[in-house]
Amino acid sequence: MGTLNDHHQYMYPSNNMNNEKCKSRVAVPPPQPFFKSLQTSFKETFFPDDPLRQFKNQPRSRKFVLGLQYFFPILEWAPKYTLDFFKSDLIAGITIASLAIPQGISYAKLANLPPILGLYSSFVPPLVYAMMGTSKDVAVGTVAVASLLTGSMLSTVVDPNENPKLFLHLAFTATLIAGIFEATLGLLRLGFIVDFLSHATIVGFMGGAATVVCLQQLKGILGLTHFTQSTDLIDVMHSVFSQEHQWRWESAVLGCGFLFFLLLTKYFSKRKPMFFWISVMSPLISITLGSVLVYLTHAEKHGVQVIGSLKKGINPPSFGDFVFNSPYFPVALKTGLVTGVIAMAEGIAVARSFAMFKNYNIDGNKEMVAFGVMNIIGSCTSCYLTSGPFSRSAVNYNAGCKTAFSNIVMSIAVMITLLFLTPLFFYTPLVVLSSIIMSAMLGLIDYEAAIHLWKTDKFDFVVCISAYIGVVFGSVEVGLMIAVTLSVLRVLLYVARPKTVVLGNVPNSICFRSVEQYPEAQTVPGILILEIGAPIYFANATYLRERIVRWVDEEEERLKSSGENSLHYVILDMRAVTCIDTSGISMFEEVHKVIDRRKLQLVLASPGGEVMKKLDRANFIEKLGQEWIHLTVGEAVGACRYMLHTYKSKSTAESETWSNNV
Amino acid sequence: MGTLNDHHQYMYPSNNMNNEKCKSRVAVPPPQPFFKSLQTSFKETFFPDDPLRQFKNQPRSRKFVLGLQYFFPILEWAPKYTLDFFKSDLIAGITIASLAIPQGISYAKLANLPPILGLYSSFVPPLVYAMMGTSKDVAVGTVAVASLLTGSMLSTVVDPNENPKLFLHLAFTATLIAGIFEATLGLLRLGFIVDFLSHATIVGFMGGAATVVCLQQLKGILGLTHFTQSTDLIDVMHSVFSQEHQWRWESAVLGCGFLFFLLLTKYFSKRKPMFFWISVMSPLISITLGSVLVYLTHAEKHGVQVIGSLKKGINPPSFGDFVFNSPYFPVALKTGLVTGVIAMAEGIAVARSFAMFKNYNIDGNKEMVAFGVMNIIGSCTSCYLTSGPFSRSAVNYNAGCKTAFSNIVMSIAVMITLLFLTPLFFYTPLVVLSSIIMSAMLGLIDYEAAIHLWKTDKFDFVVCISAYIGVVFGSVEVGLMIAVTLSVLRVLLYVARPKTVVLGNVPNSICFRSVEQYPEAQTVPGILILEIGAPIYFANATYLRERIVRWVDEEEERLKSSGENSLHYVILDMRAVTCIDTSGISMFEEVHKVIDRRKLQLVLASPGGEVMKKLDRANFIEKLGQEWIHLTVGEAVGACRYMLHTYKSKSTAESETWSNNV
Repeated sequence: MGTLNDHHQYMYPSNNMNNEKCKSRVAVPPPQPFFKSLQTSFKETFFPDDPLRQFKNQPRSRKFVLGLQYFFPILEWAPKYTLDFFKSDLIAGITIASLAIPQGISYAKLANLPPILGLYSSFVPPLVYAMMGTSKDVAVGTVAVASLLTGSMLSTVVDPNENPKLFLHLAFTATLIAGIFEATLGLLRLGFIVDFLSHATIVGFMGGAATVVCLQQLKGILGLTHFTQSTDLIDVMHSVFSQEHQWRWESAVLGCGFLFFLLLTKYFSKRKPMFFWISVMSPLISITLGSVLVYLTHAEKHGVQVIGSLKKGINPPSFGDFVFNSPYFPVALKTGLVTGVIAMAEGIAVARSFAMFKNYNIDGNKEMVAFGVMNIIGSCTSCYLTSGPFSRSAVNYNAGCKTAFSNIVMSIAVMITLLFLTPLFFYTPLVVLSSIIMSAMLGLIDYEAAIHLWKTDKFDFVVCISAYIGVVFGSVEVGLMIAVTLSVLRVLLYVARPKTVVLGNVPNSICFRSVEQYPEAQTVPGILILEIGAPIYFANATYLRERIVRWVDEEEERLKSSGENSLHYVILDMRAVTCIDTSGISMFEEVHKVIDRRKLQLVLASPGGEVMKKLDRANFIEKLGQEWIHLTVGEAVGACRYMLHTYKSKSTAESETWSNNV
Repeated sequence: MGTLNDHHQYMYPSNNMNNEKCKSRVAVPPPQPFFKSLQTSFKETFFPDDPLRQFKNQPRSRKFVLGLQYFFPILEWAPKYTLDFFKSDLIAGITIASLAIPQGISYAKLANLPPILGLYSSFVPPLVYAMMGTSKDVAVGTVAVASLLTGSMLSTVVDPNENPKLFLHLAFTATLIAGIFEATLGLLRLGFIVDFLSHATIVGFMGGAATVVCLQQLKGILGLTHFTQSTDLIDVMHSVFSQEHQWRWESAVLGCGFLFFLLLTKYFSKRKPMFFWISVMSPLISITLGSVLVYLTHAEKHGVQVIGSLKKGINPPSFGDFVFNSPYFPVALKTGLVTGVIAMAEGIAVARSFAMFKNYNIDGNKEMVAFGVMNIIGSCTSCYLTSGPFSRSAVNYNAGCKTAFSNIVMSIAVMITLLFLTPLFFYTPLVVLSSIIMSAMLGLIDYEAAIHLWKTDKFDFVVCISAYIGVVFGSVEVGLMIAVTLSVLRVLLYVARPKTVVLGNVPNSICFRSVEQYPEAQTVPGILILEIGAPIYFANATYLRERIVRWVDEEEERLKSSGENSLHYVILDMRAVTCIDTSGISMFEEVHKVIDRRKLQLVLASPGGEVMKKLDRANFIEKLGQEWIHLTVGEAVGACRYMLHTYKSKSTAESETWSNNV
C-alpha cells in the first residue's frame, strides 16, 4: 500500500480528515414550514424580479400611487421631466416619424392591408406605449416579419384582393387576440415562454423571413401585376421567371436606383456614425423624389404603380369590425397567437438590449402588458399589430432620445400627416416602397451571427440554418415550427442527456477535475470518481442510472485487462446536482443496490441542501450511512483511501474489518 | 485589514496561492477535430449503452452471427439452455397460462372486443417476444389500461354493439400502428421519449385508470344491461343509481363473493410469499367454480350473463382487415399512438425493474423493437395490443422463470386451450370476469406511493393527483394529457429557473457552500460568491442574467444599509455549469458589462471544460482576463482578498493601484 500512498501527494492531511469527519458532516438544511418553502419557490419561479419590493412597509395612499406608477411608468418619470429632455426627445421623435411614415406604408403593403393602416398604426399605439412602457428607447410601430406573417397566414383563407373588407376585419381580430395574449402572458408572469426561442433560432428565422420579404419585393420592383401567393423560394422564382416578358424596365430602373441610394446612405452612415441621420432621412427623400419624378413624367401611365388616394383624417374606430362568429375566426386566432409572440419577442429583445446599453432596467412582464394593451386599443382604432421594431428603435436611440416621450412626438407628427399631408402620397410609386423594405430587410440577414454560431456551437448553427431553410423553402410557419421544435427538442435533449465525467486529482492541488479537461489529472487507484453534470429529474434518471453502471462496468473491465488493483469505491460528485425529484431518488437507490451487489461501496460527495433534504426524507441517507457522505471529493477520497489502507494492512482478518468498515 | 484577515482562518495559504496562480490555471481542454467531437456527442446522445461494443475487431462471419443474435437474443441463450432451466420455465409457463386465460378474456371485454381475442393475443405475441426480447421475466399479454383506452377511444366513433366488425378492424389497425410506432422508436433509438413520463404522473395515471376500470365493472357486478359510454365518475354513478330497480341480486352476490375470494387469496399470498400460487390460481378457480355453479343452477336464465360459445381453433389471419381508407382511420391512428406509448412504457418499466432485481441488463431500445414487432405480427393474426403487464410478469418471476422460454410454454398452453377447451367457457358468468378485473385493478391504486410522494416532493404529489383527478373526473385521455403536459412543463420550469445561491466559507474547512444549507457558513466581506445551479442554455440565460444582477443589487443595498465595507468582487462558482450555449455566453458578456460598469470585478471559479472551450472561442476569456478565472472558489477568494489587501494598504495611491489591479 506504500506505493499507493506515495503515488501522489495530496495537500490535505488525510488522517486528520477522518478523525474530524463529524465536524464537516454534510448538513441537511434546517427544515422550513411547508407553506413558506412553497411561497419561496413560487416567488423564485414567477417573481424572480421581486416587483413588489417597493410596496413593502408603505402607507396605504403611497401604495396606491406606487400601484398607479407600476402600471403607468409615465407617472414616475413625467414629474421629473426637464426642458433638456424635451429638446432631445423632440429631435428624436421627428427623426423617427420621418422613418415611420414611409416604413408604415411599406409594411402595410407587406401585410396586404391598405397603406393608410401603416400610418394609423403609428399614431395610437405609440401613445399607449409612452404611458405604459418601461423602456426609454423603444420606438413603437409595425414590424416587417409580423406584417408578412399576418398577410400570408390570413391570405390562405381570404383573398385580400377579392374580399378586402373581410381581410381587414380578420386582421383587426388577429391584432386584438395578439394583444390579449400578450397582456395575459405579462399579467400571469409567463414571460419566460419567450425565452424558449433561442438566439440561434431567432437569427435563422429572422434571416429567412427577411429573405422571403426581399423575394416578395421582386413583384414591386419588376412591376408585375400577377404574383404567386406562396412565399417559398421556388414558387417565387418560378413566378418571376415565367413572366419575363411582363417585366417593366421603368419600374426596375427606379427600384434598383432607389435601392442603391438607400444602401449607399446606410453604408455611409455605418462608416461615419455622426451622419446616421442621412440613412434615417433617405427613405423619406426616396419617397419625395419618387413622387416628384412620377408626377413630372406621368410614369403612372407607363406601368409604374402608385399608392393612389389615401383617406384624410385620423383613425376611425374599428371595435365593431371584429369577426368572432366568422368561419375564419380560427385562422384569425392562430394568426394572432403566432404573430403576437413573434412581435413581442422582437420588442422585448430590443427593449432589453438598449436597456443594457444605457444601464437601466426594463421589466419584461410590464413590457408585455404594455405591448398587449397597445395592441388591444390599437385593434379598436383601425391599427394592426405593432411592437418595438429594431430599426426604428435604433434610430430613436441614435437620435438621442431620453424618454418614451419621443414616441408621443412621433405620434403627433404622424397625426399631422394623417390630417393634412396624405394627398402628397398620391404619386408615390410602389416600387420605392419595395426598395425601402428591401434595404431594411437586407440588414436583418445576419450572416455574421451565423458565422459566429458556427465557430462557437455547431448544434446552434444547425438549428439556425434549419430555421432559415424552413422559412425560405417551406413557409414562414414551417420555419417557425422547425425553429420552435428544434429549440424545445434541444432543451429536452440537454435535460435527458446530462454529462457524466471521470474526475482525477489535479497535480499540486486538492482539486478533482475532469480528466478530459485536465489530461494531467491522475485517477486514484481503487476508486472511481464520477461527476454528475446536471440536476436529476425523471427525464434523465434512467439514463444516468444506466450511464453510471456502464462507467463502473468499463472501469472494472479496464482494471481487469490491465491487471491493476480492483475497484473498491465509487464516489459520485454531486456538486452540480442542485435539485432532484422522486425519480432521481429511486435512481440513487437502484444505483446503490447495483453497486452494493458488486461488493463496491457508493460514496456521495458534496450534495447540495435540496438534495440532502430529499435524500433524508426518503431515508436514503440512513440506508447508505451518513459516514459515506462527504463535504468534498477530497475528503471522500481521503476517507476511502484510509479505509483501503486499514483493510489491506489487516488483510489477515479481512472479512471482519471489511464488514466493520463497510 | 487586520480584522478582516483574522475574521476566519482559511486553511489554504492565501499568499502562496497567488504566487502559484499560473500553476493552477484553469485549462481549456485540448481541441478535438470537429467530426470526432460531433461523433462523440452523437454517440453519447443516442447510443449511451454503446450497443456495438461487441462488434469491434471481429471477423465478418462472427459479425453476422452477432448481428443475428443482436436482433434475436434467443440465438444467444438457447444454445446454453439446460434441463434445469427447462423445468423452471415449464412450471412458470403453466402458472402464467392459468392466469393469462381468465385475464385475457376479461381484458378483451374491457376493450369491447370479443373475448376470444384475449386468448388469441396470448398465443402469437409471446412467441415473437421469446425470440426478440431481452428480458427474462416479462410475460407477454394484454394490459388493462391499454385495453380500456382502446375500447373507450374507438367507441367515440364506432359503437361496438352496433358495428362489431368495423370496431374489430379498427382495433387491428390501431394495434398495427402501435407496433410500427414502437418498433420505429426503438430503431431510431428514441427510447428516452418514454422517460418524459415521470414516475409521479404514472402513479397518478395508473391509479386513475384502475379506478375507472373498477367503476366500469359495476355494470357486470350489478348485472346491468344498459350502461353509460363515458368513463368519468359522475356519469358512471349517475348511470348506476338511476337504474337501481334493475340491479340483479344474483349477479351481485356472485360478484361480491368472488371478489372477496380473490382479494382474500391475494392478501394471504402477500403475507406468506410461499403460497403465491394460491392467488395465481384463484382466477382460474373462480372461473371454474362460477361456470359449474351457473351450469348446475341454470343461472344464465335468471339474469346472470355468460360468455357463450367461443370459436374453436387458433388465430385466423387478419392482415386483410386493416382499414386505412376508412373515415375512422385518424381515430385508429391516434388510438394506436397513444395506447402504443402507454403499453410500451409499462412493458419497459416492468422489464427494467425485474432486470434490476436479478442484476442483468435489458436494452430499452431492443425491448421496444421486440414489442413493436410482436404487435405488428399480432395485428396480422387477430391479436390486439399486447405488452408486458406487471401482474403477469410478477407471477412469472415468482414462479421461478429462468428465460423467456416460459412465454413459449404459456403460448403452447393457450394454443391447447384454443384448440380443445373453448367450449368449457360457455357457462362462465361475466360477473366473474368483472371480479377478476376488479381485484387486479385494486392493486394498481398505489396510495402508498402517493403518500411517499407527498412526503418527499410536494410538486410531484400535485402532478400525481392532477393526473388521477383528470382520469377519474374527465377521461383517460384528459388525464393522460394533463399528466404529459405537467411533466413537460415541470422539465421546462426546472430548466428555465435554475437555482442561484450565495456561498459562504464553512468554518474549519476550505469549502464554500450555500449559506442556506450551512447557516454557520460565513460570507467574505467585500466579495459576493454566487453558485449557478445548472447548465446555462437559451432557456435560462435571461433569467440568470437578471437574477445575478439582482443578487448584486441586493448585496450592495444590504451593505449600504448596514454600513459595512462596499462590494468589490463578484465570484461566480461555475462548478454546476457543465455546459453552455451561445445565449449563455452572451449572458456572461452582458453580466460582465453590467458588473464592470458598477466598478466591480467579475471572477469565475472552476468552470468546466466545455464551458472554457466555448468561452475561449467567443474570446470572453481574453475580455475578462485569464487572471480572473480560478480553479476553485477558495483560490478565487484568496486572490481577491490579496488584491483587496494590497489596495487597502496602499490607499494613499488609491486610484493608481486600483486601475493596475483591476
